[in-house]
Amino acid sequence: MYNKLNTCELTPRKDIENRIRHLQAEMAKQGISFSIILHNVGLFYFTGSIQRGVLFIPVDGEPIYMVEKNMERASIETPLKMTPIRNNRDAREILHDKLNNRNICGMELDVLPVLVFEKWKTLLGMDNIVDISPTVRQLRMVKSAFEIDQIRHSGRIVSQVFVKAGEIVRANAKEVDIAAMLEAEGRMLGHQGFLRMRGLNQEMLNIYITHGYSGTIFSGCDVPISGFGVTHAIAQGPSIQVLQQDMPILIDYGGGYNGYITDETRVYVIGTLKEIFKKAYDTAREIIDDAAAFGRVGVDATEIYGRALRLARRAHLEDHFMGYGKGKVSFIGHGLGLEINEWPVITAKHHTVLQEGMVFAYEPKFIFPGEGAIGIEVDFIVRKNGLERVTDSPVDIHYL
Amino acid sequence: MYNKLNTCELTPRKDIENRIRHLQAEMAKQGISFSIILHNVGLFYFTGSIQRGVLFIPVDGEPIYMVEKNMERASIETPLKMTPIRNNRDAREILHDKLNNRNICGMELDVLPVLVFEKWKTLLGMDNIVDISPTVRQLRMVKSAFEIDQIRHSGRIVSQVFVKAGEIVRANAKEVDIAAMLEAEGRMLGHQGFLRMRGLNQEMLNIYITHGYSGTIFSGCDVPISGFGVTHAIAQGPSIQVLQQDMPILIDYGGGYNGYITDETRVYVIGTLKEIFKKAYDTAREIIDDAAAFGRVGVDATEIYGRALRLARRAHLEDHFMGYGKGKVSFIGHGLGLEINEWPVITAKHHTVLQEGMVFAYEPKFIFPGEGAIGIEVDFIVRKNGLERVTDSPVDIHYL
Repeated sequence: MYNKLNTCELTPRKDIENRIRHLQAEMAKQGISFSIILHNVGLFYFTGSIQRGVLFIPVDGEPIYMVEKNMERASIETPLKMTPIRNNRDAREILHDKLNNRNICGMELDVLPVLVFEKWKTLLGMDNIVDISPTVRQLRMVKSAFEIDQIRHSGRIVSQVFVKAGEIVRANAKEVDIAAMLEAEGRMLGHQGFLRMRGLNQEMLNIYITHGYSGTIFSGCDVPISGFGVTHAIAQGPSIQVLQQDMPILIDYGGGYNGYITDETRVYVIGTLKEIFKKAYDTAREIIDDAAAFGRVGVDATEIYGRALRLARRAHLEDHFMGYGKGKVSFIGHGLGLEINEWPVITAKHHTVLQEGMVFAYEPKFIFPGEGAIGIEVDFIVRKNGLERVTDSPVDIHYL
Repeated sequence: MYNKLNTCELTPRKDIENRIRHLQAEMAKQGISFSIILHNVGLFYFTGSIQRGVLFIPVDGEPIYMVEKNMERASIETPLKMTPIRNNRDAREILHDKLNNRNICGMELDVLPVLVFEKWKTLLGMDNIVDISPTVRQLRMVKSAFEIDQIRHSGRIVSQVFVKAGEIVRANAKEVDIAAMLEAEGRMLGHQGFLRMRGLNQEMLNIYITHGYSGTIFSGCDVPISGFGVTHAIAQGPSIQVLQQDMPILIDYGGGYNGYITDETRVYVIGTLKEIFKKAYDTAREIIDDAAAFGRVGVDATEIYGRALRLARRAHLEDHFMGYGKGKVSFIGHGLGLEINEWPVITAKHHTVLQEGMVFAYEPKFIFPGEGAIGIEVDFIVRKNGLERVTDSPVDIHYL
């Protein structure tokens, strides 16, 4: 029954073993005795299964996946050694003789709520708990062949949804209605249902359709364009605004397949476009082509950001690049994987030397207050000789 | 433009003022000098606006909403005094002369990540920070007339989606395809896009369609039925299983309107039902009718749970009630509001005396391993003389 219903590939044993070995090597360097993983994404990454449980990874030797429920499902999904537990106290019993008060414990403190942390401090009877999250995020930044396969599958959902958009986007439809239909289309094509974004208040929709006014306002989210939403209680996403002719309509859609996220944006136009939008679109395209040609293993992410900014400047579009005024964001790209805000971040702010197998979304966008927004977003895989597109979905404007 | 696009009602000034006054009264009792609210749901509840910002609530006097972005939008939405900030350091400057090291600060430590907490401890230069979340959750448990209106609107989306389900559920369709279509329907009817659930790893879909096998397996989530999902990377939600005749199909759908969540479940059957399912359904219905007649202001939630359990026992269905084996959950109802796991919880474990204006989902469900699951979920508002249904959607089995 399981194999009939879960047609997604399980994480290969080799991948799980590699991930744990690399984490252990980093832990050894940092003097960490063991890590306790509690966050869903961490559990999935290191075990291959998301169940209610606790993952114990010692700096040497075998990890233990302590599973509260559901053992049966977890045992199909993870190659790791498992132990059933009823609650956290059982976990303590199991760990009791493995710990001493000279130990240093690693936990993902960027996502772990204070009260959960305090409970674990008491359970473990230790104070010396350090943040393992930068190490985990570093590790996750480079994707295996298996992961790239999942990302490509995720990207195929995106490509198909963009084709469907060309069929159904029409004047006078509400942004949110078109979004609803495309979201349903994606789900029927195998979309996992939602996208994960790491951190406090990082809320996320699967699809953003914006045009004119809704493309120019900025929300509290750390993205250049996030729409108006249908209520101030969410304050992002497609709105009830009806689609106008002669205006760039931006569709920003996140694929999600077997945990892995892709994220691309295309422009749809009913009618024609003003010169300013055409110019900005051509610049966005130039920025993408330039990155694809220049980016490769060994290049620093800040250089890619710098080149994009120079191209925007040369087109006299700097003020509109990646937002306007207080809505400006400081990055042009973000890593993709199990979460939509992975590393590397393509920004002037942080140096990251690109490595084979990194995957990131690259999104040159221009916002013109009082007018609208335009831009493109494509996903790249870092290779020795350049950046490779995740999808083969054309980036041309869809004139309808 | 704002009013044209946001057709949802803003939170009335009176509600915001009441909420803050009540929080301040509780803070005074607990000796808390001020609270700092950073979590989206808390920001929305106390300000009426979700923007990137920091809410400072002193035990006496006026709160300050410090907004990083977007001030323009926030100024329409909140009646509170606002101050623009560029970052948290600006917030510190503003708060500097209001604080001293004898102060006790309240924060929502059940949702605040450790690293964010540590940063704020440093910013405020203080160690004495206590958890304000039980107080906030207590406050939010009783809904105002305005909130009940939003919940009723949210419930109307649910009722309409259940009608639509009666039109589109058909044999040999995939659970996930029907789910996708119904989710789109809800979105076009005004659904806000996603549902909020409080706490670590509390991931949530808008709709669950399960039947047969998929209704009987249990996930890591703290719910009796959450489905198989389309991938083990999510491990919950509708699956690719195709709908069978003569089997209860459960549709569990969460409405979301203007922030407020409703959550009901209905049964659809293509053909006929086995006796065991009919009996369990009748028992579920009896449990609901009993609660509606017995529940009212002043009744303890544990009594309601106890009565439900006795009815399940009387029908010799105790083993199947609210899960089976390790999949059993200990509650039959959960509070509704801005989050889907609000208080009161209807369980034997915690005493809560029902008060006028509490709202909760009540979900007697029975799981038969190897067979399937059946049950009903309706939302109730607590009134002086009984429990009032949120929707008027009939609970009968939809025979198709």
